[in-house]
Amino acid sequence: MEFSLNQIAALINGQVEGDGSLTVSRIDKIQEGMPGGISFLSNAKYESFIYETKATAVIVSEDFNPQKPISTNLIRVKNAYNGFTQLLETYEAMVKGQQSGVEEPSFFHPSSQIGANHYRGAFSYVGKNTVLGDNVKIFPHAYIGDNVRIGNNVTVHAGVKVYNNTEIGNNCTIHPGAVIGADGFGFAPQEDGSYKAIPQLGNVVLEDHVSVGANTTIDCATMGSTLVKKGVKIDNLVQIAHNVVIGENTVIASQTGISGSTIIGKNCVIAGQVGIVGHIKIADNTTLGAKTGIIKSVDTPGKTLFGYIGFEVKEFLKSYSVFKKLPDIQDKIKELEKKV
Amino acid sequence: MEFSLNQIAALINGQVEGDGSLTVSRIDKIQEGMPGGISFLSNAKYESFIYETKATAVIVSEDFNPQKPISTNLIRVKNAYNGFTQLLETYEAMVKGQQSGVEEPSFFHPSSQIGANHYRGAFSYVGKNTVLGDNVKIFPHAYIGDNVRIGNNVTVHAGVKVYNNTEIGNNCTIHPGAVIGADGFGFAPQEDGSYKAIPQLGNVVLEDHVSVGANTTIDCATMGSTLVKKGVKIDNLVQIAHNVVIGENTVIASQTGISGSTIIGKNCVIAGQVGIVGHIKIADNTTLGAKTGIIKSVDTPGKTLFGYIGFEVKEFLKSYSVFKKLPDIQDKIKELEKKV
Amino acid sequence: MEFSLNQIAALINGQVEGDGSLTVSRIDKIQEGMPGGISFLSNAKYESFIYETKATAVIVSEDFNPQKPISTNLIRVKNAYNGFTQLLETYEAMVKGQQSGVEEPSFFHPSSQIGANHYRGAFSYVGKNTVLGDNVKIFPHAYIGDNVRIGNNVTVHAGVKVYNNTEIGNNCTIHPGAVIGADGFGFAPQEDGSYKAIPQLGNVVLEDHVSVGANTTIDCATMGSTLVKKGVKIDNLVQIAHNVVIGENTVIASQTGISGSTIIGKNCVIAGQVGIVGHIKIADNTTLGAKTGIIKSVDTPGKTLFGYIGFEVKEFLKSYSVFKKLPDIQDKIKELEKKV
Repeated sequence: MEFSLNQIAALINGQVEGDGSLTVSRIDKIQEGMPGGISFLSNAKYESFIYETKATAVIVSEDFNPQKPISTNLIRVKNAYNGFTQLLETYEAMVKGQQSGVEEPSFFHPSSQIGANHYRGAFSYVGKNTVLGDNVKIFPHAYIGDNVRIGNNVTVHAGVKVYNNTEIGNNCTIHPGAVIGADGFGFAPQEDGSYKAIPQLGNVVLEDHVSVGANTTIDCATMGSTLVKKGVKIDNLVQIAHNVVIGENTVIASQTGISGSTIIGKNCVIAGQVGIVGHIKIADNTTLGAKTGIIKSVDTPGKTLFGYIGFEVKEFLKSYSVFKKLPDIQDKIKELEKKV
Repeated sequence: MEFSLNQIAALINGQVEGDGSLTVSRIDKIQEGMPGGISFLSNAKYESFIYETKATAVIVSEDFNPQKPISTNLIRVKNAYNGFTQLLETYEAMVKGQQSGVEEPSFFHPSSQIGANHYRGAFSYVGKNTVLGDNVKIFPHAYIGDNVRIGNNVTVHAGVKVYNNTEIGNNCTIHPGAVIGADGFGFAPQEDGSYKAIPQLGNVVLEDHVSVGANTTIDCATMGSTLVKKGVKIDNLVQIAHNVVIGENTVIASQTGISGSTIIGKNCVIAGQVGIVGHIKIADNTTLGAKTGIIKSVDTPGKTLFGYIGFEVKEFLKSYSVFKKLPDIQDKIKELEKKV
Repeated sequence: MEFSLNQIAALINGQVEGDGSLTVSRIDKIQEGMPGGISFLSNAKYESFIYETKATAVIVSEDFNPQKPISTNLIRVKNAYNGFTQLLETYEAMVKGQQSGVEEPSFFHPSSQIGANHYRGAFSYVGKNTVLGDNVKIFPHAYIGDNVRIGNNVTVHAGVKVYNNTEIGNNCTIHPGAVIGADGFGFAPQEDGSYKAIPQLGNVVLEDHVSVGANTTIDCATMGSTLVKKGVKIDNLVQIAHNVVIGENTVIASQTGISGSTIIGKNCVIAGQVGIVGHIKIADNTTLGAKTGIIKSVDTPGKTLFGYIGFEVKEFLKSYSVFKKLPDIQDKIKELEKKV
């Protein structure tokens, strides 16, 4: 779909500076803007790009005061970021549409409740004594067990499994195939070398504004709750073991695994394929690079760790640069030994 | 539900030290114990909590010898961990309840059979010529294909897929979203650079007391069987490729991958995110640390390996401690070279 | 079913050496061959087994020149591996059968279309304005959303989720539990430390002859398409993030993750548990060893990389062999320092 800058300005309550008849069909990052694309400038850190961008237009805030000549077209709005998000959301509403109503056959136990403006897809399942809020969308093949609590504005995508006693807050999205509340991996070794399952009697609690990625698994606690706090965003194929706690606004990328009873602070950024052992604490504002292994607590907030057994990222990269030269170093030592 | 300490002591064959008429209604972690809750102390690391806990009672082993005054009530049993597990199991039976009966709509091909005391959830699917034992629980959205054999006391959770010809023993649990018996990843390279799928005609066999984690995948054999032996416990998001064999009572943690035709011994402990190449053998009683890579057979039983390409854990850790100092070592060599 | 060696030779265009009237009813691995079975010998590593096998017959290549007496019967073909694969395919067609027809209940929106000779399993779901070709097999619990396009000869296995606007070519197989087209992981940081979801408005395009493994996730693009080109084979539990492009005939093994907007060349071989950062390019014919981490573009085609941060495999292995000796090296340096 193509839109003129005039159309977009009308949509987001802005004013065009430049040629409003030009059209765009794509949304670009400002640093990668190309003709036919529209970008936005909100963070002053990116200001330099607006003087170079090839994007057809850039959305800016009304107080933006250029320091150099600008060749792109501007759309001025009160707040550039909000205007841009509004554009994306409008576009999304156009292309994605909203599911509503109930498709049959579906299963909804009569002891359970659901609020206004819901969608229950065909073959969706809701067990006993479950309470679901307003604007809850349950896609086909989603399974929601017994005694579950889900707030308002929550989307449970196709094939998600939400097991008994799970609590989900408001404004959460659970992506397809995710499993919330399956049994934790707890087995007691027996004298004959076999293992006996330890009953997993706790639950999972997801607070408000949590996003859970496709095919991710979050196990229920042995006792108490596996707790994912407000604003946490979890990518696909992540493993969150029993009794883990994840602090507010922490972001976890794909294929990372967090072992049992570990407590992650708030505002952490955990990249992909990270592994964290059980029963430790990670301080607030910690950043863990991709593939990092963490085997002991991180006590000081704000560190960036990286490595097979992670330590400070700069130090790891220095060591790794020497690792690459180890055969040379070995040779040098042999020479030195001969000489000495 | 409330129980007196006397009732609990009778249940787990223990002796009350304190007021046996007090009641509890909840199971707490010892570090979070509150009045009305019962905890346990098994790991000495947690001993300090018993002197502070507000739990009404704590289960301890008969040889526990307090170092300070204790204000909580004790229930002494032979082994605190086993006693506690027994209590959990009783509690689980009470609170979790047992699904039974058949919810509709469900699909059950008339050529198939199922034993006594079964549960078949809504939207569950059972194909042709399949035979299921007694006390089999099939949760909603589970798919069980044709010619499958499943023993007694098996739970197939929501959204599990069990493909044609799979054989599952007794007392197994397949957690939500696991895929048993999908095609192995086998492709024959063609002259033009493309690949042609090699038919995967074998099956998967799970022996008795096997547990398979949520969203784990176990591929069928090209020919013969992918075999998971008695007592094996597999965590979430694990990959078991075609023709793998896993020995009795081996435990495999989350996100580990085992490549095709590899044979794992019995009583191994494989931590999370381990990767093992194909066509090798891992000896009995091997322990592999988290994130370890294994690229050749492990012939000697009882070893503990760790590392990006795994070797003896103690040696790896020594090497890694020097790795951290590599920039210093490089500087020292430069100095030495100048001096010599 | 039993076949004579003469029948099999006719089927795969080969010549019998031995008794062509003997019959086989089973396909065996050569090292496990038993009377009544047929095996093949392609890899020279397995040659010793042909002198001992009890299989009734073995398929060999026309240039196979035995070094010892052979007691089994041979079927010589131009290429043993291809001949055997052809036999497997014929056998597969006989034993696997073909699902067809429609099982009820199933959901198929009246605005959608499906071609000839289709299978739609019970509890399968097809949304609005979706167009499916001929010979499309949709297994139970598969979810296909709105505005999806799927070509001919495509199998969508149990529990697969194909989200809105996905395009799938001809001759593709999507294995159980895979998720195609869920939202990419894109969040805009807000001033208060929280994140806001960026609408993901693009789609996923799978070209012809693509295979997607069980529980693998391929996210839709933010804008435009996440593109998997012709002939790509993807194993289980792989993560393909938004806006990734994967070139023709590239093969990706289990548990590998490819971050957003990365472009992978054609004819690459990517082993298991590899991690690739976002926004980079991998040249054609690149091979990445298992567990390799890639943090910058690979510009030169045909390289083989390996390592925690990958570089040339031979160099990595040399460095790693010295890494193992680092404690010794440290000791030597201390000695040298004393002496100098």
